[in-house]
Amino acid sequence: KKIAILPGDGIGPEIMAQAVRVLDALGEAFEMERAEVGGAGFAAHGHPLPESTLKLARQADAVLFGAVGDYQYDTLERALRPEQAILGLRKELGLFANLRPAILYPELAGASTLKPEVVSGLDILIIRELTGDIYFGKPRGVRECPDGPFRGQREGFDTMRYAEGEIRRIAHVAFQAAARRDKRVTSVDKANVLETFQFWRDIVTDVHREYPDIALEHMYVDNAAMQLVRAPKKFDVIVTGNMFGDILSDAAAMLTGSIGMLPSASLDASNKGLYEPSHGSAPDIAGKGIANPLATILSAAMMLRYSLDKAEQADRIEAAVKRVLQQGLRTPDIHEDGTQRVSTEQMGDAVVRALA
Amino acid sequence: KKIAILPGDGIGPEIMAQAVRVLDALGEAFEMERAEVGGAGFAAHGHPLPESTLKLARQADAVLFGAVGDYQYDTLERALRPEQAILGLRKELGLFANLRPAILYPELAGASTLKPEVVSGLDILIIRELTGDIYFGKPRGVRECPDGPFRGQREGFDTMRYAEGEIRRIAHVAFQAAARRDKRVTSVDKANVLETFQFWRDIVTDVHREYPDIALEHMYVDNAAMQLVRAPKKFDVIVTGNMFGDILSDAAAMLTGSIGMLPSASLDASNKGLYEPSHGSAPDIAGKGIANPLATILSAAMMLRYSLDKAEQADRIEAAVKRVLQQGLRTPDIHEDGTQRVSTEQMGDAVVRALA
Ligand SMILES: CC(C)[C@H](C(=O)O)[C@@H](O)C(=O)O
Ligand SMILES: CC(C)[C@H](C(=O)O)[C@@H](O)C(=O)O
Repeated sequence: KKIAILPGDGIGPEIMAQAVRVLDALGEAFEMERAEVGGAGFAAHGHPLPESTLKLARQADAVLFGAVGDYQYDTLERALRPEQAILGLRKELGLFANLRPAILYPELAGASTLKPEVVSGLDILIIRELTGDIYFGKPRGVRECPDGPFRGQREGFDTMRYAEGEIRRIAHVAFQAAARRDKRVTSVDKANVLETFQFWRDIVTDVHREYPDIALEHMYVDNAAMQLVRAPKKFDVIVTGNMFGDILSDAAAMLTGSIGMLPSASLDASNKGLYEPSHGSAPDIAGKGIANPLATILSAAMMLRYSLDKAEQADRIEAAVKRVLQQGLRTPDIHEDGTQRVSTEQMGDAVVRALA
Repeated sequence: KKIAILPGDGIGPEIMAQAVRVLDALGEAFEMERAEVGGAGFAAHGHPLPESTLKLARQADAVLFGAVGDYQYDTLERALRPEQAILGLRKELGLFANLRPAILYPELAGASTLKPEVVSGLDILIIRELTGDIYFGKPRGVRECPDGPFRGQREGFDTMRYAEGEIRRIAHVAFQAAARRDKRVTSVDKANVLETFQFWRDIVTDVHREYPDIALEHMYVDNAAMQLVRAPKKFDVIVTGNMFGDILSDAAAMLTGSIGMLPSASLDASNKGLYEPSHGSAPDIAGKGIANPLATILSAAMMLRYSLDKAEQADRIEAAVKRVLQQGLRTPDIHEDGTQRVSTEQMGDAVVRALA
């Protein structure tokens, strides 16, 4: 099995190094091959998603991705900026299903800005459609405004769209994920305003007929944003479109107060996937050895489970991470009085030891 | 001065009755005229925004709006559903600037799901553009998918768009509001993905050159959703588009835990406005006399300040509301041990008494 290793920018290389050590420590014969992506891709090959990197990602059975983005690339034109690599990989590899668990580890309950009783035991799964919606819809651009009171002025515009098949396949992912959990799906839309999401609601409702054991609830996106703050534990699986999912999954991650702990998976139709931490490249702390590698290590665990058919090894990694938390080891982002502050590398060491 | 009174559905009539009593108690010679809207508009005249109601709203100097929506209208086709009245009024009256304060009253700090230190003293103002964006953009509908892997299937689609003048005028509103506050504006966009919001960022940046005393920061919407949960007090004024504003303003309101307290104003170019509570019609508690009328009463205060040129009377109402909170009076939605539970009407009584 071949794994493409794309460390990226900022803290990407540091956290990836620890995830690779953990993978090495499993004693499996994985082939791992590295390539530059994001700002590093631009620096080495003039493009955030170089041909050679895309080729490797296509060949591999799974992609482990660090993070992209750094100050020196902020002034590049949009097509060359680091985040285009993420969008390009999603589209080129057909990674339409983004799975983002928002889990609050009991040991880290204090890190949340929410009251403990509101978030303790939080365990929700956000499933975000990742290759459709207004992210990729055409036409888009800046043009002369064709009508209305601003006719003749310049206007920016984009197209939101979802085809029936796109909605069906992500709905299936959500219902199947719920079947392995608490059997409840909340489909988030804006059917009261948007044609796209009235259509979304109709199709999700139709797919639901194949899953009589799963409870389906529809919720408007503004209400979902409120309920995530008010009573997040009421959710089990949330499924939504690309744009709403971008916003809600980040809000949900922040509820835990420990985004440095949260992995994600982006899957295609045959469970090939790209795995990355939910946090960004944090250029402000890059190179200081203080970044939390656990989200990347847990992303590697998701990769083992979903794409590499090694559920047992995934369990081992997850258990090892729990153990180091119980031992009281904390990188600075999750450090509290009475726990032991460790570096990125020491955290990696501890996970490797806990695996044994 | 003429005020259009549109109570609407659910708890709308109950909370409106208290706001009208408070307005009456000011001793000003306002002309108030009532009309049906939402489900009540449909029931009386076959349309959620009847001609006669729209005509009254156009003639009046300001509109005080309760809330719309009730179970029996849920199965109507979309064009006849209650919330179309809100969208219609915004568009027909040109109410492009939605001002939604998210304020945490010190007496109600316990109501928030967030830790007191994270939200105590919260006072942010969200300015949402209200007549543009994907809410009204055309074309929109369900059609045959013209291209890509889903070609030939049905697809739902909508158009996001912002013309230069639309962005300019809402940016001016935001900078001017910030000038009366802490002089900081956060413009929320998704410039890394959307053409509309790259254009938005460019225009806001340009308008900012006229306001050298105001600090401007740009933030992606996903990050804004996170920062609202992580450190909401860091914001002063947030300005954003219609869709993002819908989501973020509800999230911000919920941070306070007391959405029954939060008013809103929707203004046109000459400060004529529609004023409504930030909460909905809550049909589950309608008619029980337990709804919180304070958001509607505070909306009336905003109306006096922005549209009726009666800032002093607005101050009087706001002071009266503070006083009843200090007296420990609470409707059930904000009730805590050690405070006195009162009905909708008793709360109205108390505010009227406190005005004296
Ligand atoms: C970097 C950006 C294009 C991306 C997105 O909006 O999808 C990011 O926010 C994410 O959620 O992975
Ligand atoms: C009812 C609905 C159309 C409306 C909106 O989306 O604008 C509501 O959510 C609001 O925020 O006033």
